[in-house]
Amino acid sequence: MGQVAIQAFSIVDNGSIVSPLGFSAGGLHCGLKKTDRNDLGAIKCDVVANAAAVYTTNVFQAAPLQVTRDSLKNGKLQAIIVNSGNANAVTGKQGEEDAYAMRAAAARELGVAEEDVAVASTGVIGELLKMDCVHAGIKAMPAKMGKDTDVAGEFSQAILTTDLVKKEICVTTQVDGKQVTIAGAAKGSGMIHPNMATMLAFVTCDAEIEQQALQGLLGQSTDSTFNMITVDGDTSTNDMLVAMSSGLAGNDILTPKHKDWESFAEAFNYVCEVLAKAIARDGEGATKLVEVNIQGADTDDSARAIAKTVIGSSLVKTAMFGADANWGRIIAAVGRAGVPVNPEQVDVKLGDILVLQGSRPVAFSEDEALAYLQGDTVQIFVNLHGGTGKATAWGCDLTYDYVRINAAYRT
Amino acid sequence: MGQVAIQAFSIVDNGSIVSPLGFSAGGLHCGLKKTDRNDLGAIKCDVVANAAAVYTTNVFQAAPLQVTRDSLKNGKLQAIIVNSGNANAVTGKQGEEDAYAMRAAAARELGVAEEDVAVASTGVIGELLKMDCVHAGIKAMPAKMGKDTDVAGEFSQAILTTDLVKKEICVTTQVDGKQVTIAGAAKGSGMIHPNMATMLAFVTCDAEIEQQALQGLLGQSTDSTFNMITVDGDTSTNDMLVAMSSGLAGNDILTPKHKDWESFAEAFNYVCEVLAKAIARDGEGATKLVEVNIQGADTDDSARAIAKTVIGSSLVKTAMFGADANWGRIIAAVGRAGVPVNPEQVDVKLGDILVLQGSRPVAFSEDEALAYLQGDTVQIFVNLHGGTGKATAWGCDLTYDYVRINAAYRT
Repeated sequence: MGQVAIQAFSIVDNGSIVSPLGFSAGGLHCGLKKTDRNDLGAIKCDVVANAAAVYTTNVFQAAPLQVTRDSLKNGKLQAIIVNSGNANAVTGKQGEEDAYAMRAAAARELGVAEEDVAVASTGVIGELLKMDCVHAGIKAMPAKMGKDTDVAGEFSQAILTTDLVKKEICVTTQVDGKQVTIAGAAKGSGMIHPNMATMLAFVTCDAEIEQQALQGLLGQSTDSTFNMITVDGDTSTNDMLVAMSSGLAGNDILTPKHKDWESFAEAFNYVCEVLAKAIARDGEGATKLVEVNIQGADTDDSARAIAKTVIGSSLVKTAMFGADANWGRIIAAVGRAGVPVNPEQVDVKLGDILVLQGSRPVAFSEDEALAYLQGDTVQIFVNLHGGTGKATAWGCDLTYDYVRINAAYRT
Repeated sequence: MGQVAIQAFSIVDNGSIVSPLGFSAGGLHCGLKKTDRNDLGAIKCDVVANAAAVYTTNVFQAAPLQVTRDSLKNGKLQAIIVNSGNANAVTGKQGEEDAYAMRAAAARELGVAEEDVAVASTGVIGELLKMDCVHAGIKAMPAKMGKDTDVAGEFSQAILTTDLVKKEICVTTQVDGKQVTIAGAAKGSGMIHPNMATMLAFVTCDAEIEQQALQGLLGQSTDSTFNMITVDGDTSTNDMLVAMSSGLAGNDILTPKHKDWESFAEAFNYVCEVLAKAIARDGEGATKLVEVNIQGADTDDSARAIAKTVIGSSLVKTAMFGADANWGRIIAAVGRAGVPVNPEQVDVKLGDILVLQGSRPVAFSEDEALAYLQGDTVQIFVNLHGGTGKATAWGCDLTYDYVRINAAYRT
């Protein structure tokens, strides 16, 4: 182990979802957004890819999720069509027909089978899609698609709503001595509190991998990455994470029994974690990324519950915005998470600054704490000294801009 | 029934916690707050009263809660001493000693037994009480106490932190043909998401009532009132609701078997509901009261879960601030509440304005909706058409001022 395990993968500068062998992508503006920002994107694979997905647990599932489930019945996909600006959620039978029409149009224009196309949407809930815009956009899409990173950036741009920045990551790792590439693109911003899935995220890969193994890995990675972020505690109707692997890297087929599985899984998990953290950092109105590390809980599940309670606390989030070392709010959130905690032996650190030890306040420099909390990344460490359970969650601060953005979202 | 049942009680204009027979109260500034607002209050009963309490479920329980539990072991109280400006929470052994010292001083100055005194605190977590201020304040308290409503107002003022207005209510009802009076005072504002208890609330009553019956009634009323409000989803370390009944009204002892129990319980519940709604309306930064009514859930518990999810949604709360009829956010919150909902048959109304019927959008006047949502009270009605379960929850909008207040609370 040692050095080899630590460097299980390398980050590819300027990599993107088209870096894995076999993938092309593109994006354009078709008229669903009022601005001229891109609002339609597509990913295509040269071959039919093994694919896997996880979806929101919200009972109101948007029409495109149903279509994607339908396409993924056989565990294969060759293309993904995505629009932003309209969620096509709570749109009834017409919404379903529109989502299927999107799939059919994308299949026709991209030259793939209908049942190999996934559909995703994000934006306002309860309004019908302007299908004339969608159809014109899909018709124009093939000419906009390509295999270089700039063109892939148009895709990453097309899936955004109130996001400020694109969220992309690309890594390589070795399987059977062959280079395997894994990349991802995601969008987040508001209504971010994923539960078994996230907002839209797309992972491409060129490893040969068994579909069941891919689905299993996607689920595991989701639990410790996308499911551990929150912006505002609201779980969307449209959350979807889709992974496609082209199998063109030339490795022997990956399963959990493969000797390189651990390092591949680590690289895959890293892609998910980077995208998840990027969503948290770019939460609506956010000025910083907040990371909560829980140690010493009785179980990992307890640690997760506590981490998500702390990261979701409006009072913790506003204190972080104000760079206020108000550890009392952290403790109050730990104490209401609904899992066992011994209230007499808790340590809390803000970065390296110890503020509570054995549940007793520790004198600390307010100036030093202020300087630390004014940074663009804040880490909160809580040790419960009760067991071996641990978890990390990511979120952001709660700011005037979150209120401004959401007080006038539809208008 | 009919008229009699409907008018089971009357609201007493200008009534207060000293209106029930036997009670006096007062408040003063002792120096715990930086401003000159009152920060110490006391209630005293002429006789030892039957009493009951419910407390926060947060595992970090503040020192005064332990002292109050200790005093309430025999179900009796004669006085309550309360400070604001400092929560005396997560303050260790010194905090416990301070809370017991507050009890001893109050007992001595008010001329009652130590074990008949409850102690409550609210304010910043993790700082030791300035006991010199507390002792001087308690010494000065008897001279400030009285039986008229103006003096009681000084108490209601003394328990506030970032609250803007006092929260008081007084009603009378008939038991055995005798007039019985029930009154309450409360404080709320932030860290309001009670779980089995609320922030500080005090109910006084002069009915003769069995202690067990009082405790049972307090628990039931809490479940449908204080436990159904939220300001920010954060459950405090100091929540406490205490009820004292002097028994001086001259009625036969009340138990659930008494013929007037139902009307008494209704009056008691009304006192709790008024205080709970007043806390929600005066939530930190709030500009309006938001009420969520759920009907047609499979059970009352499901309805409560849904009502609390909707009222707690930051996206719903910001939409209410912006007077935006964004029913998609209401639906998204309903769908993530974790209880059974048929997503195909949901109706949503904003006041009288139908916006969703059978889970299909209904055309409505945006102007009319805007005018309604700009009011100081907004009612959201959701009918799930799935059963007989129903519940009501109360909260407030999420505003710039919530962020402002909480980004700089300690400083």
